[in-house]
Amino acid sequence: MKFSISTAALNEALSVSTHALSARSTMPILEGILIRARDGELNVICSDGNMSIDVRTAATIAEEGSVILPGRLFMDVVRRLPNDECVVTVGINHVAVIRCGGSRTTLAGKDAEQFPALPHIEGHKSISLPQPLLKNMIQKTSFSISTDETRKILTGALLELQNNELSMVALDSFRLALMTAPLNCADTVSAVIPGHLLQELVKILSDDDSAFMTITFGASQMMVQMEDVTIYSTLLEGEYIQYKRIIPTTAETKVTVLDRSQMELCVDRAALLAREGKTNLIKLHITHDMMTITSNAEMGDVYEEVGIDAEGPDLDIAFNVRYIQDVIKVVDDDSFTMNFNSPVSPCVIKSTDESAGYLYMALPVRVNA
Amino acid sequence: MKFSISTAALNEALSVSTHALSARSTMPILEGILIRARDGELNVICSDGNMSIDVRTAATIAEEGSVILPGRLFMDVVRRLPNDECVVTVGINHVAVIRCGGSRTTLAGKDAEQFPALPHIEGHKSISLPQPLLKNMIQKTSFSISTDETRKILTGALLELQNNELSMVALDSFRLALMTAPLNCADTVSAVIPGHLLQELVKILSDDDSAFMTITFGASQMMVQMEDVTIYSTLLEGEYIQYKRIIPTTAETKVTVLDRSQMELCVDRAALLAREGKTNLIKLHITHDMMTITSNAEMGDVYEEVGIDAEGPDLDIAFNVRYIQDVIKVVDDDSFTMNFNSPVSPCVIKSTDESAGYLYMALPVRVNA
Repeated sequence: MKFSISTAALNEALSVSTHALSARSTMPILEGILIRARDGELNVICSDGNMSIDVRTAATIAEEGSVILPGRLFMDVVRRLPNDECVVTVGINHVAVIRCGGSRTTLAGKDAEQFPALPHIEGHKSISLPQPLLKNMIQKTSFSISTDETRKILTGALLELQNNELSMVALDSFRLALMTAPLNCADTVSAVIPGHLLQELVKILSDDDSAFMTITFGASQMMVQMEDVTIYSTLLEGEYIQYKRIIPTTAETKVTVLDRSQMELCVDRAALLAREGKTNLIKLHITHDMMTITSNAEMGDVYEEVGIDAEGPDLDIAFNVRYIQDVIKVVDDDSFTMNFNSPVSPCVIKSTDESAGYLYMALPVRVNA
Repeated sequence: MKFSISTAALNEALSVSTHALSARSTMPILEGILIRARDGELNVICSDGNMSIDVRTAATIAEEGSVILPGRLFMDVVRRLPNDECVVTVGINHVAVIRCGGSRTTLAGKDAEQFPALPHIEGHKSISLPQPLLKNMIQKTSFSISTDETRKILTGALLELQNNELSMVALDSFRLALMTAPLNCADTVSAVIPGHLLQELVKILSDDDSAFMTITFGASQMMVQMEDVTIYSTLLEGEYIQYKRIIPTTAETKVTVLDRSQMELCVDRAALLAREGKTNLIKLHITHDMMTITSNAEMGDVYEEVGIDAEGPDLDIAFNVRYIQDVIKVVDDDSFTMNFNSPVSPCVIKSTDESAGYLYMALPVRVNA
């Protein structure tokens, strides 16, 4: 096996593929990177057992072949090569030699046959969408994904396609994040995508509206195809929560927050004392034109005034400050609505602009008056 | 006590002073910030017991006074205030109220009398120099300061002024870094400054050549005065090593490295395998026009060629890669010299430009051929 490629192109391929590189795996072979040279193209493949990333890049192939190289080390060496052409030769016993200018690195490789085969997805259903659309959906919802491994299904986000509408929802026992967007596609899809995959995917997806992606869903696996990158992942199995039923559709007290960034700073300051007090609790007092936010600890307290427009009765309600902070951070409208029914029922947060497509729900904390 | 000040100015003062704020001190009072309001000026003072920083900033003082506020919390609150004027009032029981727009934060303060008094330096000797000069000296030498607390004196750097020459030297058992610069001053000074102070000082010192500083040396303490900032620190006591005797003055093999950045990349790549192999060892093979750098581990090896000009006999010598990496990183000349006497005697690294003022020495590692 022998190929040559610019270090820039090899670095680029490695930077994407290694999102799936295992640091310390129970399967040591997954600490390696599979390199395959064939038909004027390299495949650079990493896998952590659940997720695999296969990046294709053009190279000059002098002799076809494949090898597994020590992942972290190969990546670190290539990253420090000068901006030049490098030549990789793999000889007997899978020993790889990387030459670039006056530099020569020898690495002990392994038989490519030992690398787990990439899954073959039986392509029943497949949707195509712009990469920034999915990226935005992930950014707007993934913070609500549960980290509690005892309810595995909630460690992923539900992606649904129905009636030409795509939606992603994530929830734990205390909050919910939902993002919907129109997508012209007759198919119906419902799949729970692991949170870890979404975390890595958001780093890989492009912001360019003309960059498309295709997602193909199998029975227990999915495949994401972009121009030079294919990602394989298992899906989470089981029934996702019937979340639509738990979102309140009416509201007693309707609040419109007029200045998102002012509210963000107020909540951040209140969070300082809420954390200091170990309760993480902020209290909201809502009147027709003002919301006050308070928190306290032994060391002191914070009192904040936020200008609002409100309809309905005054209300006192308390929240874990993190659930409010997380939402305000991802809202990208200047103004948004917070709808309440009582001090013990969930608050629903939406944009004042209906087409924004996001909806958040947070459960309050019951406190003594 | 009552004063008002722009949040920007207060943030600026806090960001400098808190370089000396204790995170978790055996003296809980040092987790606080002392604020003193007097004569149209605030003093913002932090201390970690060994080092104290006093920052002065103009403020509108409605009522003079002083208080100790919870350090971390006060800093975090002020950092999140809107860019506006804030008013701080301290009432009975040292309770402080910080008002800014619709925000009101209350913090439990403490009696300012509890804060340790700032030292009074008996000003025997005092030198004045541009801030960037000392900053450069610290950057060029401080990486060689020992971290071994059993030889306390080596956890600082020796600052000497003699015959109109200022020098700073730092060394541990394996290497030495020396920086000298002309300074027109008739005084003679010799003081060992704690490494921790130098670490913080380098972050505070200006790059502006017109910014001066005065350092006053007492018997066991020093005082650094800048425009709005005064820093107090203990000095390390004891006799520093007579380092001049241990620097070789002759050389058998004289090497000139022509391209610093090429050498840096080569050593970085060699370092990868040196670390992987747990020895941290790189081997240099020096001939008249070429230095090869090699390192190896179970997983592979690296071979690098660096173009040099050399005089004298060929040489094989080995080093802990870190000592070479640290030096090459701070050298700011394109070319530099490495002088050797034998495989078991120290290497001396200098700029090809005598006026650069730096000198490094590293002990080799004895290896079996």
